[in-house]
Amino acid sequence: MSKFWSSMVKRTVPYIPGEQIDQKDILKLNTNENPYPPSPKVTDAIKTELARGINLYPSPTVEQLRDAIASYNQLAKENVFVGNGSDEVLAFSFMAFFESGKAIRFPTVTYSFYPVYCKLFDIPYEEVPVQRDFSLQVEGFFQSEGGVIFPNPNAPTGVFLSLDDVASIVEQNSEQVVIIDEAYVDFATESAVSLIQTYPNLLVVQTTSKSRSLAGLRIGYALGQPELIEGLTRIKDSFNSYTIDRLAIAGAEASFRDKSYFKETTQKILQTRSWVSDELKQLGFHVIPSQANFIFVTHYKESATYLYQQFKKIGVLVRHFNKHPINNYLRITIGSDQDMKLFLTKAAQVLQ
Amino acid sequence: MSKFWSSMVKRTVPYIPGEQIDQKDILKLNTNENPYPPSPKVTDAIKTELARGINLYPSPTVEQLRDAIASYNQLAKENVFVGNGSDEVLAFSFMAFFESGKAIRFPTVTYSFYPVYCKLFDIPYEEVPVQRDFSLQVEGFFQSEGGVIFPNPNAPTGVFLSLDDVASIVEQNSEQVVIIDEAYVDFATESAVSLIQTYPNLLVVQTTSKSRSLAGLRIGYALGQPELIEGLTRIKDSFNSYTIDRLAIAGAEASFRDKSYFKETTQKILQTRSWVSDELKQLGFHVIPSQANFIFVTHYKESATYLYQQFKKIGVLVRHFNKHPINNYLRITIGSDQDMKLFLTKAAQVLQ
Repeated sequence: MSKFWSSMVKRTVPYIPGEQIDQKDILKLNTNENPYPPSPKVTDAIKTELARGINLYPSPTVEQLRDAIASYNQLAKENVFVGNGSDEVLAFSFMAFFESGKAIRFPTVTYSFYPVYCKLFDIPYEEVPVQRDFSLQVEGFFQSEGGVIFPNPNAPTGVFLSLDDVASIVEQNSEQVVIIDEAYVDFATESAVSLIQTYPNLLVVQTTSKSRSLAGLRIGYALGQPELIEGLTRIKDSFNSYTIDRLAIAGAEASFRDKSYFKETTQKILQTRSWVSDELKQLGFHVIPSQANFIFVTHYKESATYLYQQFKKIGVLVRHFNKHPINNYLRITIGSDQDMKLFLTKAAQVLQ
Repeated sequence: MSKFWSSMVKRTVPYIPGEQIDQKDILKLNTNENPYPPSPKVTDAIKTELARGINLYPSPTVEQLRDAIASYNQLAKENVFVGNGSDEVLAFSFMAFFESGKAIRFPTVTYSFYPVYCKLFDIPYEEVPVQRDFSLQVEGFFQSEGGVIFPNPNAPTGVFLSLDDVASIVEQNSEQVVIIDEAYVDFATESAVSLIQTYPNLLVVQTTSKSRSLAGLRIGYALGQPELIEGLTRIKDSFNSYTIDRLAIAGAEASFRDKSYFKETTQKILQTRSWVSDELKQLGFHVIPSQANFIFVTHYKESATYLYQQFKKIGVLVRHFNKHPINNYLRITIGSDQDMKLFLTKAAQVLQ
């Protein structure tokens, strides 16, 4: 502790991201990146923008990209806020819609950044226990004091909550903002975006890092009615005028305009997820039904800690959260077919 | 006002950046961008990184870029924090080192984002009046309650405070953090970086947006002793794990490695600043001696409001701050020689 630190720094409990090892021979299945490159149109758009020059500031209002995202989602530009990765969008959302004196709710098993934001901004929180199959207890989120946030599909389980249940939670919190963190929704059956016109208190947060293969670019966004978007914009304009660089804006815009490439790569991952799940069951894993680009598994015999360590020894990175009630589970990102064949061989080897 | 906004949103008074008009025929001298492209090595590095792929997350600790910045400044990596533009670095600094109950100090004439951060984070502030020639009143910053921040050279005046005076202010606030915002320092005589080893309470903030022609990439950084850097890192890791994208990291690193190109373009701007200042004096402008890549001028006859409007009509954008005591001044970015010849022709035309 330094005497120069503010009380805010002192109360932080920083988030620990998955290991980022930049090594060619590692099979990296620990941070839910997409194994496929982004659309060639993305690369072209970035090169064109680079040739136009990067000595001038980007647009502070990011109109063109917001237009592209709006059009993809059949919304208007006024329904779209863009930020530097969905983590920044979430941080701004905690600032804009949650309050120091009022407890918000999220599930006991969820994205581990939420309690980090709560510590940072001094927002109290209540954790709603998940059920034994890791599904959410819908009624537990009704009538919250300060708002609700959860990922759908949930992280790190991949369990999806139906749109009817999402709608009930939004309805039963009509005076608070409900944030649905849809980082993985493109691998699931349906998005809560279709509920936005009905509910002024619903904010849907998405990202280009997973389904659009742009983790390296840092583009996240929020969708909601204009008054929520304006709240986020006021925070952003009081924090950093230009949060997204020219190359990222150009690349992300091209991604939203190329629907067929996106559909194709997303479809591939769903197929891979399906056969990998089956194969892992053969190896004695219990696989939680996932609607994300990862699967959450536990083994009938070997502990997750042991498996995590054995995998690491032979160059396979998966994610292990050493926290009850998920400490005996591993989260495994769905890579390419080739990646996953290699992974299954290595898994068989570890389990021998 | 929306009922869904937090008290934080409600108290914000967002910053208004200079107009960003993306039009080829506009002479844009309003946001202090560099007229020269970045080093060709920057473009090459970005293309190489793009070819390596952008589907994986960037490094959350940005080691390589921090190494390059440290090496350029003869410091260690532990002295360097990197953020998404110096505005983000400043926002994190307000969170990390300033406190709700304790008034900080900055000059009456200064970067207009400081009071915006104060509103956002509910930090009280005292404004120390500048002298008639816009130089800072050094003693006015002694013994602050909650810390000190000012740009050096100051914005939007370009007036530079000597290193001896900076050191006195840092010394006379030994229990608080003093932030020197050196966005424009590469166009000035000396940086406070040389004081870092002496003063644990000194944080120097710089940017690649001006002198390194990378406004479009969004890279700012802070230099200080490790305990200050750790404070910033804790805030960042509680806010957004990956704030800088792969392409920006690669480009900025290449910029710090190419010293000769940087020296050459910076030198050119100093030369242009010198002759443009002389020419403007001939046209009846009073030019405040500037150590930045802009000049701050007032005309003996025509009002700044009138000149701003006339310039805009003929496609010249300069910056006018409609605030006492600078409302009769214009801030003019130093462009290329060609830009500035055109600007002088247009100025003569407006003054006819």
